[in-house]
Amino acid sequence: MPNRSLSELAELCGATLEGDGALEVRGPASLEQAESDQISFLNDEKHAEKLATTRAAAVIVPQGLAVDRDDLALLRAEHPNAAFSEVIVAFAGDCDGPAPAVGVHPKAIVHETAELGTGVSVGPFCVIGAGVRIGEGCVLHERVSVQHGSSLGPACVLHAGVVLRPAVQLGARCTLHSGVVIGADGFGYDPAPPDGWKKVPQCGGVRIGDDVEIGPNTCIDRGRFGDTTIGDGTKIDNLVQVGHNCQVGSHSMLCAHVGISGSTTLGPWVVAGGRVGFAGHIQIGQGAQIGGGAGVFHSLEGGQEYMGLPARPRGEYLREVTLIKRLPEMKRTLRDLERRIAELEGETA
Amino acid sequence: MPNRSLSELAELCGATLEGDGALEVRGPASLEQAESDQISFLNDEKHAEKLATTRAAAVIVPQGLAVDRDDLALLRAEHPNAAFSEVIVAFAGDCDGPAPAVGVHPKAIVHETAELGTGVSVGPFCVIGAGVRIGEGCVLHERVSVQHGSSLGPACVLHAGVVLRPAVQLGARCTLHSGVVIGADGFGYDPAPPDGWKKVPQCGGVRIGDDVEIGPNTCIDRGRFGDTTIGDGTKIDNLVQVGHNCQVGSHSMLCAHVGISGSTTLGPWVVAGGRVGFAGHIQIGQGAQIGGGAGVFHSLEGGQEYMGLPARPRGEYLREVTLIKRLPEMKRTLRDLERRIAELEGETA
Amino acid sequence: MPNRSLSELAELCGATLEGDGALEVRGPASLEQAESDQISFLNDEKHAEKLATTRAAAVIVPQGLAVDRDDLALLRAEHPNAAFSEVIVAFAGDCDGPAPAVGVHPKAIVHETAELGTGVSVGPFCVIGAGVRIGEGCVLHERVSVQHGSSLGPACVLHAGVVLRPAVQLGARCTLHSGVVIGADGFGYDPAPPDGWKKVPQCGGVRIGDDVEIGPNTCIDRGRFGDTTIGDGTKIDNLVQVGHNCQVGSHSMLCAHVGISGSTTLGPWVVAGGRVGFAGHIQIGQGAQIGGGAGVFHSLEGGQEYMGLPARPRGEYLREVTLIKRLPEMKRTLRDLERRIAELEGETA
Repeated sequence: MPNRSLSELAELCGATLEGDGALEVRGPASLEQAESDQISFLNDEKHAEKLATTRAAAVIVPQGLAVDRDDLALLRAEHPNAAFSEVIVAFAGDCDGPAPAVGVHPKAIVHETAELGTGVSVGPFCVIGAGVRIGEGCVLHERVSVQHGSSLGPACVLHAGVVLRPAVQLGARCTLHSGVVIGADGFGYDPAPPDGWKKVPQCGGVRIGDDVEIGPNTCIDRGRFGDTTIGDGTKIDNLVQVGHNCQVGSHSMLCAHVGISGSTTLGPWVVAGGRVGFAGHIQIGQGAQIGGGAGVFHSLEGGQEYMGLPARPRGEYLREVTLIKRLPEMKRTLRDLERRIAELEGETA
Repeated sequence: MPNRSLSELAELCGATLEGDGALEVRGPASLEQAESDQISFLNDEKHAEKLATTRAAAVIVPQGLAVDRDDLALLRAEHPNAAFSEVIVAFAGDCDGPAPAVGVHPKAIVHETAELGTGVSVGPFCVIGAGVRIGEGCVLHERVSVQHGSSLGPACVLHAGVVLRPAVQLGARCTLHSGVVIGADGFGYDPAPPDGWKKVPQCGGVRIGDDVEIGPNTCIDRGRFGDTTIGDGTKIDNLVQVGHNCQVGSHSMLCAHVGISGSTTLGPWVVAGGRVGFAGHIQIGQGAQIGGGAGVFHSLEGGQEYMGLPARPRGEYLREVTLIKRLPEMKRTLRDLERRIAELEGETA
Repeated sequence: MPNRSLSELAELCGATLEGDGALEVRGPASLEQAESDQISFLNDEKHAEKLATTRAAAVIVPQGLAVDRDDLALLRAEHPNAAFSEVIVAFAGDCDGPAPAVGVHPKAIVHETAELGTGVSVGPFCVIGAGVRIGEGCVLHERVSVQHGSSLGPACVLHAGVVLRPAVQLGARCTLHSGVVIGADGFGYDPAPPDGWKKVPQCGGVRIGDDVEIGPNTCIDRGRFGDTTIGDGTKIDNLVQVGHNCQVGSHSMLCAHVGISGSTTLGPWVVAGGRVGFAGHIQIGQGAQIGGGAGVFHSLEGGQEYMGLPARPRGEYLREVTLIKRLPEMKRTLRDLERRIAELEGETA
């Protein structure tokens, strides 16, 4: 990676430079880790004290922030975080590495009835089933399975080892990371003692909107009937489980290890922190935000924050956590009152 | 999928028809989503109010339920859910897509000492190790590994990307979904400061009974010595972790994200909800049911329900959750009593 | 596996034999499950009562332990657990099964610019990208991807289905189990309503030290800029998630289902039990031990134990759990005091 001058970087990210534009830096780093030939950023003014000690040559900062460092070049930007992303990309270039070449790799297996759009790349050891349709410009890295009758909209990227079972539909511009499994059977059994459990047939599909990104090793199960659906623009992190017949709204965000039991509906713009679990057959309203580790057993209204096991409104949860911390004190007070009452009772007896 | 008449469907699922048997529907849907040419079902009478508004043409309902809708055809069944499953399958046909052809795909690698039963399918890019035995009628989809000395009973299905490490034995009719890894090393290290951790050798195997189904990306580790075991008929959901030397009883059910630490024993018919964690070296009694998100640190008696972190009997947990909600009120009461006592003390002083 | 005599086993594991050295046993088993021709071990004296009933022929026990069983051969060792490991390995032999042959399997694809050290094995259906470097003696089982520019130190073992995305560096002697995905994009998006979320470019890498072992289906994301790092000797269990730009110290231990949000730092020798979740941008001090299922929302001091959701010092947590159990009693006391005060107030009125 060649060095870049501060004036070049300021122009690139639309920032106003205060300092020596000819100064060159070799790459981005955090305020703590930056060395004297690197550029950093401060997104949130509440961490402004880090500016006093950083060794960075230059820092992208918010527009109006007062900075008391003569030796530090400043790039003032409206959105320092977004500006820093531009700098990162400028230095990194294509950080994804090369995609498989356009066309079908000779070591891939594509069924004769599959339809591939123009400019599609199918990497080695892929298996594409009968009746599959792959939209133009899709990139399938090595070892991807797209099984019988599934379809991809244009410009999707499927990383190494992704499996789409039958009856999966992806919209446009979806990215599925390695190890993602979409469309496996939902987890449904009827009790049939003494012989055990009888499998409930799982015959629906999975329908995923446009611009959805799904992290490594995440699983989304097919519906029992009808489809499990993921709305446009929703982002799903690693190791997430979405059960059969769930309906996840658009622009939602599911962090790592989230689990959604069958037939639960999330409205649009829902944010679930890491490890949040949802019971089955419940509804989560638009814009609900659920903190990490929470367990949601009942439907939740939208537009609010929730925390805890069981999940409850954030304010209520925080109050309860505080009071639980005070339980030893409450217990002492209670004992003290008992003693004082007994004394009073003795006096008035 | 062709349309089907209500009389045909009623016969198929053993229901009694009330309505026009010649009426045709095009498929199954939920009460909420059904359109006027679809069939739905009501399993639980407590949701009977949905019947008033559904647009479905016909609904499978319990035998004795009173329904006040002249325009709605009814199919009365003893087990509406099971009857609906028959309807789903009738419409869906083979919803799994075609299996790989019987025989070994030319792009699979099968060791010369492996023994394959009659009617076995081995898909492309599979790798079958030395001494492996695969029972008759097994289906291995693409990219499956069955390593050195492992064995499958008859009629197992291994989906794309499954890995069986050495020393794994599957019973009959097991289904392993994509990304399942069975028989990797257990997580065992002895502290050896200052150099770090010394690996404890993991030399046991994994023994899985008949009719076990295991969801995508679930992991079951091999024993340190002896086998990790899963009993007949047990069903395991996605992204579950079963540690080394665990003994999971028959007909148990482990929902998504469950984690069982090493050497823990679950009796038969245990049900663990999503994200339940079990400490190591504990015993869970027959038929214990543990609610989602619970953390089990100690052995539990069978035949009861448990919830919470730490897990405790359900009634106790619910009482405590209710009382925690009342902590602000208790605190106020406490302050009020303090004031009143101080007053009384003043008076009697 | 041939039988082995007790004198042979005692010598092998450095134990002192009390009993008939010529007696042969056929393998290791737990005290509960051992039959009369097997050898077992007792590591912790607090379970010494199991010695009374075991059917084992011989047991490895701590040096000074009094044992009242004339029919039981004893092998006295300083570290019975470690000694038993030697016995396990003696019986099991090579329990990992054979590795792929040294050299590149004809069905693997290795880019012409990749550099392979001496003695490297690359199994079938592997894909090795441009500029990759693989240290001497590494073993890549079948279906492993090492993408563009990544590198492995000497003597690493990558099991079937592992994916290393670009910009991943492994140290020496790392073991990655099946389904591990290292270097996928971090989960970072800027809110951009009404259109949804804008992806924050993820251009950093992952740097993993020496002697790191990583369990099946675990994911470690690449940094946004700079590297996500895992220190020397750290052990990571199955289904763990390490977010972008996390810094995990050396000799730490992350149990199954642990999730670490982005930019969080763990010091050396941190132990996180199963399902522990860490918020982003926090610091965990050296040697902190966090109990299973805990949720860590704030930075934690090292050298202590923590439990609960939210995580708090272990003693505090246990006290609170005890007091929560007593809430019904506290509520009754409170009601009783109210009644008694009202009575006193009546008397003094």
